[in-house]
Amino acid sequence: LNELVFIGLGLNDEKGITVKGLEETKSADQVFMEQYTNLMADFSLARFEALCGKKVQVVSRRTLEEENGKVILEAAKVGKTVFLVPGDPFIATTHVTLRIDAEKQGIKTRIVHGTSIMSTIVSLSGLHNYKFGKTVTVPFPENFSETPYNVIAQNKKAGLHTLCLLDLNANENLFLSINQAIKMLREVEEKKKLGAVTPDTVAVGIARAGGSNPTLKADFIKDLANFDFGQPPYSLIFPGELHFMEVDSLIAFAGTPVTFRRLPK
Amino acid sequence: LNELVFIGLGLNDEKGITVKGLEETKSADQVFMEQYTNLMADFSLARFEALCGKKVQVVSRRTLEEENGKVILEAAKVGKTVFLVPGDPFIATTHVTLRIDAEKQGIKTRIVHGTSIMSTIVSLSGLHNYKFGKTVTVPFPENFSETPYNVIAQNKKAGLHTLCLLDLNANENLFLSINQAIKMLREVEEKKKLGAVTPDTVAVGIARAGGSNPTLKADFIKDLANFDFGQPPYSLIFPGELHFMEVDSLIAFAGTPVTFRRLPK
Repeated sequence: LNELVFIGLGLNDEKGITVKGLEETKSADQVFMEQYTNLMADFSLARFEALCGKKVQVVSRRTLEEENGKVILEAAKVGKTVFLVPGDPFIATTHVTLRIDAEKQGIKTRIVHGTSIMSTIVSLSGLHNYKFGKTVTVPFPENFSETPYNVIAQNKKAGLHTLCLLDLNANENLFLSINQAIKMLREVEEKKKLGAVTPDTVAVGIARAGGSNPTLKADFIKDLANFDFGQPPYSLIFPGELHFMEVDSLIAFAGTPVTFRRLPK
Repeated sequence: LNELVFIGLGLNDEKGITVKGLEETKSADQVFMEQYTNLMADFSLARFEALCGKKVQVVSRRTLEEENGKVILEAAKVGKTVFLVPGDPFIATTHVTLRIDAEKQGIKTRIVHGTSIMSTIVSLSGLHNYKFGKTVTVPFPENFSETPYNVIAQNKKAGLHTLCLLDLNANENLFLSINQAIKMLREVEEKKKLGAVTPDTVAVGIARAGGSNPTLKADFIKDLANFDFGQPPYSLIFPGELHFMEVDSLIAFAGTPVTFRRLPK
């Protein structure tokens, strides 16, 4: 049977894949993988190949975006082809085009979902999922944008939390730090003065979500900027209105001082 | 070592768990599981017990919410204890209290995340993750609320998509249907007349997200209400402004007529 199966690798290491995803990989004729849309900090290709018993061909951004994944589509025309993607295959929309192209060429596609960084960060924080507004990525300084600040301000106005992914380039081992992200947001605050990101704004910094030893720290921006989060990747949450159970959760798991209970909503 | 490990079972069946989650379960002294926060349509307890080689104790909502998970905490005081939860352990916040209680009693806790219904629905739809606003659950008619309509209207105003989870009671095999959800939203529209859910509003109905044979259908509300989605669980997306790539994706995977390309944003 020829088909293209998109499989999420989940987070952190080669055991982040689901049992189903691993089974599907074991029965594939050809296996491809990309490693650039997300960092899997403890992933070893050799260990993964031992686990699935297949040779895995790592494809570059160039292969996917400039050559439209031709090598993958050609393989999927003649046999069961698996394409492994960090996290969930379509939470970053990069690969939707490949899936549409496959269907246009008459190749059947299936998805085996994986654990996504998005839901993992929400889950780790203990904050209520239905209270998150729009998500945003804070870019590297060379791609400076006011959008992240605007999203935080808008969500806050509606009482909603904002999940900020911090930009990364996994191939070149570049990661925007929490300190850098706060600095950029503070610059926009100084200009727009909406009060969304002041030194006394509370935020939650998260490092290595999905890894075996994640770091969470909820504190005032001014203190968070100097906190040592250890190894990447990083993300930030700007809470909107906090329910007392959410505060309890931050106190229990994000090193928040108990005095936070007295903070206004 | 005594500890409490929360492990996400992921979606659909016993192979939705990660390889890491399965390994952790295999090495546990006691294994508990709840089955009421989400439906895992093809999950077999017997097959899962064969897979992990452990006896799994299913705990009720009563045990968790009225007795505060006492039986689980007692086990975690004397040995490695695993608590299995459908999807991701903390995307529904039901179990955050148990984790806080454990830490208060000096029990170390860890999390092995799982595939969540939230990210899976976004991923399946091909819509852009960062364009989703606040999420909402549409309740059963006996818990009628105007909130879901208001959330859709607010998100739409900001150009954002709304993910609507449809209420379910997995224990009693009750699932709010897409037809019922639309009917409730239309009732509020008739009263508030904000134009957020008219017969000509486009929505995406999704059944069995995360299963091996999900159904997606994007269409006008008036046509969606009569579409046969098959077995539960169900969800709905009300798109805000659509990027042309998102329209392409709906045409390719959600049976959307090509004429949708001509729809205004």
